[in-house]
Amino acid sequence: LIRRVSAKVQPRNPKLIRGIGDDCAIWRPAPGEDLVFTTDFLLDGVHFTRDLYSARDIGHKTLARGLSDIAAMGAAPQFCLLSLALAPDVDRRWVDAFYSGLLKLASRFGVVLAGGDLSHSDRVLCDIFVCGAVPKGRALQRRGARPGDSIYVSGRLGRCWREYRRPLPRIELGFALRGRASACMDLSDGLSLDLHRLCTVSGVAAALDRIPVRRGFTIEQALHGGEDYELLWTMPARRQPPRGAIRIGSIVEGPPGRVMLEGKPIPTRGYDHFRQ
Amino acid sequence: LIRRVSAKVQPRNPKLIRGIGDDCAIWRPAPGEDLVFTTDFLLDGVHFTRDLYSARDIGHKTLARGLSDIAAMGAAPQFCLLSLALAPDVDRRWVDAFYSGLLKLASRFGVVLAGGDLSHSDRVLCDIFVCGAVPKGRALQRRGARPGDSIYVSGRLGRCWREYRRPLPRIELGFALRGRASACMDLSDGLSLDLHRLCTVSGVAAALDRIPVRRGFTIEQALHGGEDYELLWTMPARRQPPRGAIRIGSIVEGPPGRVMLEGKPIPTRGYDHFRQ
Repeated sequence: LIRRVSAKVQPRNPKLIRGIGDDCAIWRPAPGEDLVFTTDFLLDGVHFTRDLYSARDIGHKTLARGLSDIAAMGAAPQFCLLSLALAPDVDRRWVDAFYSGLLKLASRFGVVLAGGDLSHSDRVLCDIFVCGAVPKGRALQRRGARPGDSIYVSGRLGRCWREYRRPLPRIELGFALRGRASACMDLSDGLSLDLHRLCTVSGVAAALDRIPVRRGFTIEQALHGGEDYELLWTMPARRQPPRGAIRIGSIVEGPPGRVMLEGKPIPTRGYDHFRQ
Repeated sequence: LIRRVSAKVQPRNPKLIRGIGDDCAIWRPAPGEDLVFTTDFLLDGVHFTRDLYSARDIGHKTLARGLSDIAAMGAAPQFCLLSLALAPDVDRRWVDAFYSGLLKLASRFGVVLAGGDLSHSDRVLCDIFVCGAVPKGRALQRRGARPGDSIYVSGRLGRCWREYRRPLPRIELGFALRGRASACMDLSDGLSLDLHRLCTVSGVAAALDRIPVRRGFTIEQALHGGEDYELLWTMPARRQPPRGAIRIGSIVEGPPGRVMLEGKPIPTRGYDHFRQ
């Protein structure tokens, strides 16, 4: 299996000195770059089910989750490591389709699969680790939002995991926000919870005046759903936002983390694994 | 939970610009260093059971598995990310004990916990990602063994996961082998399988003349068990090995990957998740 996967890995990257096939991958950082790192689970029964998701969907989404975090930092994705546990009933065809889904997305964004771990389990378990690179000191962070900043999202909200099988991470938008956004994060646990987090670390509050709801979804889903894979960011109000940005409100002074909609506080009920 | 864990994290590292609390950790590499990366699952029902392992044991072993790979590269561990899924029946005490076990080992080797992912599942699932640093071009690799080299292991073999709950990764030995070993890897899937892998990528064969069996275990366990967490390496026969090294045989010319013991080929029956 390792040999089969290894043969399929494209693209290559000269900074990757050693990929699949050793105890560790070896990476030679370029001068003047900071590296950013994220890891994300995609678990059968939690983030997908195998009746609703094909093997390709699962491969795609495993990597997409990690790439969405890389986009939120304004970074260029470099390489990934995959921990994959296979269930007894998956066959070679399933495994090949899983890797096809993952490697197709990897290739689109120039990410090399550089290694990982293989195991077995009663359910399929995926954990992706992704490394991105950004010019020194230029990574976007959640902290940095200031009163007076406008708040934006990159698309209409309300998706749920049942229907959103192949999200496309907002990598190019992340680049465009570098040096322009005052704070940025990806929307993966729902607007109400994620904006609360951004405001908390920035020590500010938020006043929302519109919620762009995706057609066919409710405002509740747009506020508290957890599968948008859009970026949420703030920038000084005078600054021109990138194309496609939707302004949803302003950063204001107030109790850190408080989020108001049309003058009323909204509860933070996004997808939190420990509040369900 | 994230806040509680975050408060406990020691040590710090000036190269870690941003740790727990953002979409990604931010790392500023030091000039002249290569980075090495590994990821390892530790799964309930596969690598441990909760009746045999305490929460502390599980925390310790999660990180120890990753550190053992870092040791095999001759690298100094830097930081780790943890993906952790909690089962419904674990309580706050269990989680605290898990992190204590992990952070105590982290502190011993100067590893910073820089982030990760939290989720839930019907069983406890851990996936550790570890980054190590090594002077440019000096990482040990599996390939490089040459006919005439001696083969060594760092301790007696035969452990099984049921009893080996707190392995200590051979980090200092890895340093000592840098620039001296011709090839190196960690023994985590059994000597027969792991030596076969080392020989395959090096394009050589191995002739073993003794197997150092741990007291209370059988030679079968020493050959094919998979929980040693020792290093396996080769070096020119004339070179003095580090203290504690046990010579087990020589690299010879022959079909790549073939391993002989006292003139007879031994089967590669180590712990392979896809051959069971």
